[in-house]
Amino acid sequence: MKRYERLAHQLSELIKRGDLPPGARIPSVRAACKAWGVSPATVFRAYYLLENRGMIKARPRSGYFVSPSSGELLRRSPGTSMSTDPKTVNISDLVFEVLKTIRHAETVPLGSAFLSPALFPMARVGKSCAKVNRSTHLASMVDGLPPGYEGLRQQISLRYLMAGMTVPVDEIIITSGALEALTLSAQLLAAPGDVIVIEKPTFYAALQAIERLRLNVVEIPVDPVEGHDLDALAQALQQHPVRACWFMTSFHNPTGVTLDDSRKQALVDLLARHDVPLIEDDVYNELHFGPDPVRPAKFFDRKGLVIHCGSFAKCLAPGYRIGWAAAGRFAGRLEHAKWMTTLSASMPAQRAIADYLEHGGYERFLHKLRRELALQQSQMLDAISRYFPANTMATRSDGGYFTWVALPDHVDSIQLFQAALNSGISIAPGPIFSADGAFRHRMRLNYGYPWSARLDKAVATLGALCADESRCGAKLAGPVRPA
Amino acid sequence: MKRYERLAHQLSELIKRGDLPPGARIPSVRAACKAWGVSPATVFRAYYLLENRGMIKARPRSGYFVSPSSGELLRRSPGTSMSTDPKTVNISDLVFEVLKTIRHAETVPLGSAFLSPALFPMARVGKSCAKVNRSTHLASMVDGLPPGYEGLRQQISLRYLMAGMTVPVDEIIITSGALEALTLSAQLLAAPGDVIVIEKPTFYAALQAIERLRLNVVEIPVDPVEGHDLDALAQALQQHPVRACWFMTSFHNPTGVTLDDSRKQALVDLLARHDVPLIEDDVYNELHFGPDPVRPAKFFDRKGLVIHCGSFAKCLAPGYRIGWAAAGRFAGRLEHAKWMTTLSASMPAQRAIADYLEHGGYERFLHKLRRELALQQSQMLDAISRYFPANTMATRSDGGYFTWVALPDHVDSIQLFQAALNSGISIAPGPIFSADGAFRHRMRLNYGYPWSARLDKAVATLGALCADESRCGAKLAGPVRPA
Repeated sequence: MKRYERLAHQLSELIKRGDLPPGARIPSVRAACKAWGVSPATVFRAYYLLENRGMIKARPRSGYFVSPSSGELLRRSPGTSMSTDPKTVNISDLVFEVLKTIRHAETVPLGSAFLSPALFPMARVGKSCAKVNRSTHLASMVDGLPPGYEGLRQQISLRYLMAGMTVPVDEIIITSGALEALTLSAQLLAAPGDVIVIEKPTFYAALQAIERLRLNVVEIPVDPVEGHDLDALAQALQQHPVRACWFMTSFHNPTGVTLDDSRKQALVDLLARHDVPLIEDDVYNELHFGPDPVRPAKFFDRKGLVIHCGSFAKCLAPGYRIGWAAAGRFAGRLEHAKWMTTLSASMPAQRAIADYLEHGGYERFLHKLRRELALQQSQMLDAISRYFPANTMATRSDGGYFTWVALPDHVDSIQLFQAALNSGISIAPGPIFSADGAFRHRMRLNYGYPWSARLDKAVATLGALCADESRCGAKLAGPVRPA
Repeated sequence: MKRYERLAHQLSELIKRGDLPPGARIPSVRAACKAWGVSPATVFRAYYLLENRGMIKARPRSGYFVSPSSGELLRRSPGTSMSTDPKTVNISDLVFEVLKTIRHAETVPLGSAFLSPALFPMARVGKSCAKVNRSTHLASMVDGLPPGYEGLRQQISLRYLMAGMTVPVDEIIITSGALEALTLSAQLLAAPGDVIVIEKPTFYAALQAIERLRLNVVEIPVDPVEGHDLDALAQALQQHPVRACWFMTSFHNPTGVTLDDSRKQALVDLLARHDVPLIEDDVYNELHFGPDPVRPAKFFDRKGLVIHCGSFAKCLAPGYRIGWAAAGRFAGRLEHAKWMTTLSASMPAQRAIADYLEHGGYERFLHKLRRELALQQSQMLDAISRYFPANTMATRSDGGYFTWVALPDHVDSIQLFQAALNSGISIAPGPIFSADGAFRHRMRLNYGYPWSARLDKAVATLGALCADESRCGAKLAGPVRPA
């Protein structure tokens, strides 16, 4: 193969595979000469060959581009990775299958963990982003280093103040989303083999983190109405050398339940007596439907034992990936951990959000968002009551955007997940929220999307599937062990 | 204390501590009423009290702001955390002491790990950031999810192509800087107690990650001229169940050495025979002084065993925190790990860099940067030869921005670090680059800042300190164990 043929072959492989998609610019002749150490003639011959095959096109004074139709037939179609046949399932794979449904615009996202992007003030946040990042910022890298951009940490401290809490700026560490704050905190507080207490059901990322960190866990039940079972916690603290608790105390995912103030106080007091830190996942805090802010357990903390983890991903700007920990007495160690894992959070996003918080009208936006979510909850619960079998129960929450649905006993939610996907609908089946495959007759539904005929129809379809024992019956049970 | 007094007290504490700095806007009366559930009269009385004390000021039609002078005397001064007295030192603390010197603009940053921000095209990258993030992007959150923004992954694939390598887009996972790619890879490949091979000397973040992941390590020597000792590696692979190697094969930090092509080929072949993956830290790859790109070990990989980790932090936009892994056969597992630790990299930064790579003139900028760094190396080596004792040796590198300096035997680099800090100069003392406190007579100097009289004077001061045995003599040895 001659040199220009080899070059043409390399490029055509990329185009066929879709790595260079239709419309993409390919290197200029000058750049290509430099990159491959070949003469302009070689590059021209290679490009001429590709042009003859219809794979690329020259545009006058613009350079070469991949042809509109080129390679399209060979592109992987977005749906192929998701099998809809019954098959062996493990919980970890199932989590990713559920997560990845969000990529498919054609799938109704009732299993999604995210709010509808349409609800966010992305244009206004984008305006802040453009404004503060358009100019030169020589110091921007240094400013963003741990514990994070001070302008943003001040704004976060101010929001705590507005909710009646005094949290010093020094205690706040900016992270790449709350998930980083949570996993770094767990890693900080517990070594492999140590015991930490988690919820059952719990957020699946907590399960994954615990597996990765090789921790031992004690699960305490979270009742959809009462919340965390503090008696079970007291017992666990007696029996085990617990290093930390990882709890979501408000608008719990997946149940939606919130511990009331007196129980939060009791939780903090109990942990203080045992000197056990609380990693408090509070990412839905701003999404309260009532008029008043919901107090985190952190509010009652007098010993610096609560690491309060928050985020702008659920209430302002999801793709920006800005979260934080108000880390109490652990702030210094968490800052060091951040230095050594991802260094700083992305500076354009930190600056953009700080500017938006100061000038963008956050309070006004949140007010509107909360009303919308409360309305969407009513619409979802109403649809469930209309379309699902009579012995279905769905939780009503004071905030957030999830309902935890107890299905009739004959329904297996993993079977339902598969059957629903065949109908273009995602759900979050109960077993992904526990380590042992419990909650087979439960599912989490997302009402974070504006209500529509499409959603109504999807809930109707789910209801019909649940009524049809042959489609998603527990008797067809997959390999997941019942709780 | 009355309600308005309590409110005033809370605010004044924040102002005194500097959490609300001079000029910061404080909540509007309306927002404050809502937040604290008090009447406008209460808020007005609180603000009136603070205004009377000179702590805040009203600006017509703008609201209330912290007074310019308020609290300034009480602010922590930036230098206080850094003791310059001799004291007990442990390596981990020392690393953070070195890292944090970069925050102090008045300290000459010869110990810094970063390039001068002045060398980067921040204005042009900022223009891209403003352009692509100014408008609404409903899908931006979904687009940024693992494996990352496809537009950016295509641009990265294209850069590989320009360097003569075919790396499919599917293999590329965007991360929050290369450091995340590296630590996630190590976590993926090795469980606590497993053995991985690292370099000696090595990048201190590798040491920290290994400690956090509780891995066992075998160190193989990196010679400042020859590079990695492949015989020692072969022996380690014979003797231990090695799960991975973590190497920097080009412009190694701290020595600056680059393995030549034949030795990279030999490295890859050796690892392939043992089926051991290589985590290749290649963050300085673009900073070559010669006309041609430097091939990574990944170039020679035929088995998908090399996870090639790159970054834009060292060669384009430090504060943006965008890196990647071209993860070979481990791409799928790395993508899952990313889902479960920090989810996605920040979307505004991903979009900005993708746009810059396509339209910003990256090649032109790099060409200029490489020339500047090569010049700065000459200036630094020249100054060292003029000012340091005759028996000092400094490495000359083909890229990057570090020189690894062998000091006269009487000089202890930790003592030198302390003495230099007293003179307003930072250095990176040798012992932070190994687990056992070796390299006591070495230091790393950064030549990533444009040469200036200030730098010249700083090198002269260092040279004089090294000549003065009483100031930084090895006889005054601290508690670090000699190698």
